[in-house]
Amino acid sequence: MEVVGRDAVLDDCAVLHVGDRFLVASTDMLHASTDFPNGMTDWQVGWMSVAVTLSDIAAMGAEPADILLAVGLDHPSRLRQILEGAKSCCDTYGARFAGGDLDSHRELTLVSSGIGFSLNPVRRAGSRVGEVVGIVGVPGRAQAALEGHTQYLQYLLTPRPRVEEGRILASAGVSSMMDVSDGLISSLFDMKEANSCGYEIFSSQIPGIPGISPDTGLDLALRGGGDFGLLFTCRPEVLPLPIPDLHVIGRVIEEPVVKLDGRPVNVLGYQHHWD
Amino acid sequence: MEVVGRDAVLDDCAVLHVGDRFLVASTDMLHASTDFPNGMTDWQVGWMSVAVTLSDIAAMGAEPADILLAVGLDHPSRLRQILEGAKSCCDTYGARFAGGDLDSHRELTLVSSGIGFSLNPVRRAGSRVGEVVGIVGVPGRAQAALEGHTQYLQYLLTPRPRVEEGRILASAGVSSMMDVSDGLISSLFDMKEANSCGYEIFSSQIPGIPGISPDTGLDLALRGGGDFGLLFTCRPEVLPLPIPDLHVIGRVIEEPVVKLDGRPVNVLGYQHHWD
Repeated sequence: MEVVGRDAVLDDCAVLHVGDRFLVASTDMLHASTDFPNGMTDWQVGWMSVAVTLSDIAAMGAEPADILLAVGLDHPSRLRQILEGAKSCCDTYGARFAGGDLDSHRELTLVSSGIGFSLNPVRRAGSRVGEVVGIVGVPGRAQAALEGHTQYLQYLLTPRPRVEEGRILASAGVSSMMDVSDGLISSLFDMKEANSCGYEIFSSQIPGIPGISPDTGLDLALRGGGDFGLLFTCRPEVLPLPIPDLHVIGRVIEEPVVKLDGRPVNVLGYQHHWD
Repeated sequence: MEVVGRDAVLDDCAVLHVGDRFLVASTDMLHASTDFPNGMTDWQVGWMSVAVTLSDIAAMGAEPADILLAVGLDHPSRLRQILEGAKSCCDTYGARFAGGDLDSHRELTLVSSGIGFSLNPVRRAGSRVGEVVGIVGVPGRAQAALEGHTQYLQYLLTPRPRVEEGRILASAGVSSMMDVSDGLISSLFDMKEANSCGYEIFSSQIPGIPGISPDTGLDLALRGGGDFGLLFTCRPEVLPLPIPDLHVIGRVIEEPVVKLDGRPVNVLGYQHHWD
C-alpha cells in the first residue's frame, strides 16, 4: 500500500488501536497493463494479488487475519483460477479468504485488502543513528526474471510475502521496517521520508544472484522491484536472528541522505519500471 | 460487497470475532463505465466510492472505523476532488480515512475497503416466519433520477449510507438485515438465499415517490438500484423505532419464494441495470 492523500500515514498499513492490540489494514491495486508480467497464469495473478497485501501486513510484523478481494474481471473464465490462487496464498500464510466483490471490467483489475493484528506493529518511522540496516531476501531476483533470467521466474510470478520473518523481526525489537516492493534504493528513500536520519549501504554486503555477474546483480538489487523482501533497522545486538536470507547491508546515519559505498545516490536512476 | 467464491459468506461484510466484539469488513469496486452516472463530479465519485462500503457496514448494524481507498486514476487532475469527496463521506459518518493505494489506470477505478465494529452484527440469515419485513428509505429515487427525474439527483449522486439507522435497528434486535443496492426485489432474493423462508411484500405499503405516478414509482422501487436503503426483518413488537423513513412493507413467510401482493415474482424482471 502506498498511502494516498495529505493525511497520509507513512506506513505499509494503517494502524488502529483495538483493545489490547493493534489492527493493521492495507489495500493494493494491481491491473493487467502494469502489474502482471507476460506469461503469468491466472492462478499466479490471484496469488500475487493477495501476496502484495500480505507483504504489507508482514512489514508491520503483524499476523494476517482476513483478506478481501475485489475482482474486476475481463473474462468470466478467469475467475476460478484467480480465486484458487488467491485462496492458496491465504492458506499458505494463515490468512482467511473472507470474500470480496466481483465486477466486470475491460482490464483485469484486482484489489486485495487485508487486516492483521499485532501487539507492537513496527512502523517505517523509528530508525536511530548507529543502528544497522538489514534486509530479508535476495533483492533483484524478480527483476532478473523479468530481464530474461528464467531460472528466477518463481520470484517474479509467485512472490513470497515474508510473514513469518516479519513477526520474528518485530518480536526481536527491530526499530523500523517496510517491504521492498520497488527496489532497494527506492525503499530506502521511502524509509528516509518517514525518519529524520539517512541510510548508508555497502554494495559488498548485498547478496549476489548466482549465475548473474556481480555488477548486473547489484544493479538488479538496487532498482529491481517485485521481490517482497523486508527492509529494517535495529540495534546491532538484536542480531543474529533465526531467519534464512537475512543480510546486514548498512547502517543508519545522521545525514538525511541515502548513500551507496560512501556516496549519496539519487532515487531517479533506481526507479523500478515494469516493461 | 457481493461475496465471491465458493467459500462465500452470504453477508454484506465478512465478520471476525475480536476480543469481546466483532469486526466487520467489506470491499467494493466501482468503475467509470458501469458505476458512475453521466454528470457525476469527481467529488461525488469519491463520496460514492466510500458510501458503498459504509452502506455495507451499516447493513451489519456496525460502527464504521477505518476506510481505505485504492484509486486507479485515468487522469492525475482528478485525484484531489476524489479524495476530498471520499474524506467528506468518511467525516460525515464518523469513519477515519486511513489511506490507500494509488495507481494509474485506463479507466477510473475505485475500490474502497472498510472495517467496523459491532457487539452484535446483524446477518442476512436470521429471518423467522411471522416476522415483519421493513425498509429504511424510499426505494426508487436514485433510479428515478437516472430516468430523468432530476429532482431526485441527490439520491443518485450523493447517496446516504444508513449508518445511524443500521445501528438503531441492530440495537433494537432486528433478526436479519442487508442494504438495498440493486432494487427491492433483487435484495429480497438475496435475503432468501441466506434463509430457508420466503418474503411477501405489498405494493400498497411501499412508499410512493412524489411527482411520479404510483405505477411508475412502484416499478422504480422494485427494480431500481443505488438508493442504499436498508432491508430488515424483525418481530412486530420491535417497532416502532425512532427512524424517519422506516416502512413496514411485508412479512416473512414459510414458502421460500418472494411474493408481491400474493403472487410469486421472478427476479429477472426486476434486475437493475445502469444505462
